[in-house]
Amino acid sequence: MTASVTASILVIGDEILSGRTKDKNIGYIADYLGALGVDLREVRIVPDVEDEIVDALNALRRRYDYVFTTGGIGPTHDDITADAVAKAFGVEIGEDPRAIALLLERHRPEDLNEARRRMARIPAGAELVLNKVSKAPGFWIGNVIVMAGVPAVMQTMMDDVAPKLRAGVKMLVETIDSGGLPEGTYAAALGEIAAASPDLSIGSYPSFENGKFRNQIVLRGRDAEALAKAADAVRAALEGLRG
Amino acid sequence: MTASVTASILVIGDEILSGRTKDKNIGYIADYLGALGVDLREVRIVPDVEDEIVDALNALRRRYDYVFTTGGIGPTHDDITADAVAKAFGVEIGEDPRAIALLLERHRPEDLNEARRRMARIPAGAELVLNKVSKAPGFWIGNVIVMAGVPAVMQTMMDDVAPKLRAGVKMLVETIDSGGLPEGTYAAALGEIAAASPDLSIGSYPSFENGKFRNQIVLRGRDAEALAKAADAVRAALEGLRG
Repeated sequence: MTASVTASILVIGDEILSGRTKDKNIGYIADYLGALGVDLREVRIVPDVEDEIVDALNALRRRYDYVFTTGGIGPTHDDITADAVAKAFGVEIGEDPRAIALLLERHRPEDLNEARRRMARIPAGAELVLNKVSKAPGFWIGNVIVMAGVPAVMQTMMDDVAPKLRAGVKMLVETIDSGGLPEGTYAAALGEIAAASPDLSIGSYPSFENGKFRNQIVLRGRDAEALAKAADAVRAALEGLRG
Repeated sequence: MTASVTASILVIGDEILSGRTKDKNIGYIADYLGALGVDLREVRIVPDVEDEIVDALNALRRRYDYVFTTGGIGPTHDDITADAVAKAFGVEIGEDPRAIALLLERHRPEDLNEARRRMARIPAGAELVLNKVSKAPGFWIGNVIVMAGVPAVMQTMMDDVAPKLRAGVKMLVETIDSGGLPEGTYAAALGEIAAASPDLSIGSYPSFENGKFRNQIVLRGRDAEALAKAADAVRAALEGLRG
């Protein structure tokens, strides 16, 4: 069995914590990584405060194969991600000629003022991550991939990064609707199947719509045979309980 | 100046990390706390793994006035939040007669099987949090408030908890659209205003719609006079730059 490839996301943004902006990046990156067979294991959202970013980044990058950050790489004073990443890695940061060249594809030289040049500040040793929407690049240093917070921009950056990621074995998923059976009715049977399937992750997920609960059982794993066997057992158990 | 009241959210859920379910609770709780003047300072999303929950919970509860958790309090084997919270606090956990009484409002005694009784497992010393949708309660222990993951249920729990929270001074917010000016054009002026307003949080937030960037400047603070002064300065700076 191939060892799994793991990842975490660090969302940098006062605007998410204040509630002003509703995050759309976590779910997108989660899906994207899932398709690559990379296991998303943890997410943190921290404010635009350098020490908080540095601490979270150091905790996450030591623990997971990849850390994806979003937010804080624009031209304004509150965009402090690049400096925080340089500090976390203990490397220098300065204007990167490759990044300046990219910015000049969008801005006339006379418009490349000090603020815009901030977007070319890249930690030493980092590779650039391309941004098809507005040119200002993200970057990749060590196992940390630094991306924009604007979803459309972040998404083009994921497309640039994806082919270079170490892919894992894609997780296989089976979703089974309980067909109206409440969780409490099938919980015991499901628990037994889960206990007998140590290599699978089996969860029961209720949702509530129009005044009614709907329950779905989700089985996830990388062994197709074990997954099919457990899914059959779940379907048989539900059928038995529906009588 | 009143000391601020701080909070964090711990989302417990494999289904969020896998991308299967898109979280709707973080933004809701962020807005809710904002209206109460409570500062949301950090969010973590962790998998349904006891040690991960315990570690994150202990880190967050020591650091913030409140920790709100969502997810993992149903009747199935993957619902392990209550046990993890008891472990984090080092207290016993067992069936709580108050919780059993609530469950009996929804279930006939003969339907209260072992799985459903799991939903009455409450750490010693906790207060119950009421659930108007499906009765199974959340709980509150120390500074940790444990809620359901299903948004409709979590929302009724927030309503039960809110009057008992220590409220802060509500954050005042001014939002100013840049009126088409790109961030790089006003970044220097905004940086100066931010530096001159140490008690305010001033951010610039681009969004991208229909192929165009739109920029909004958000000023946040608890001092109405300082906020109005800085907002005037931002409007004047933008006007000057638009020429």
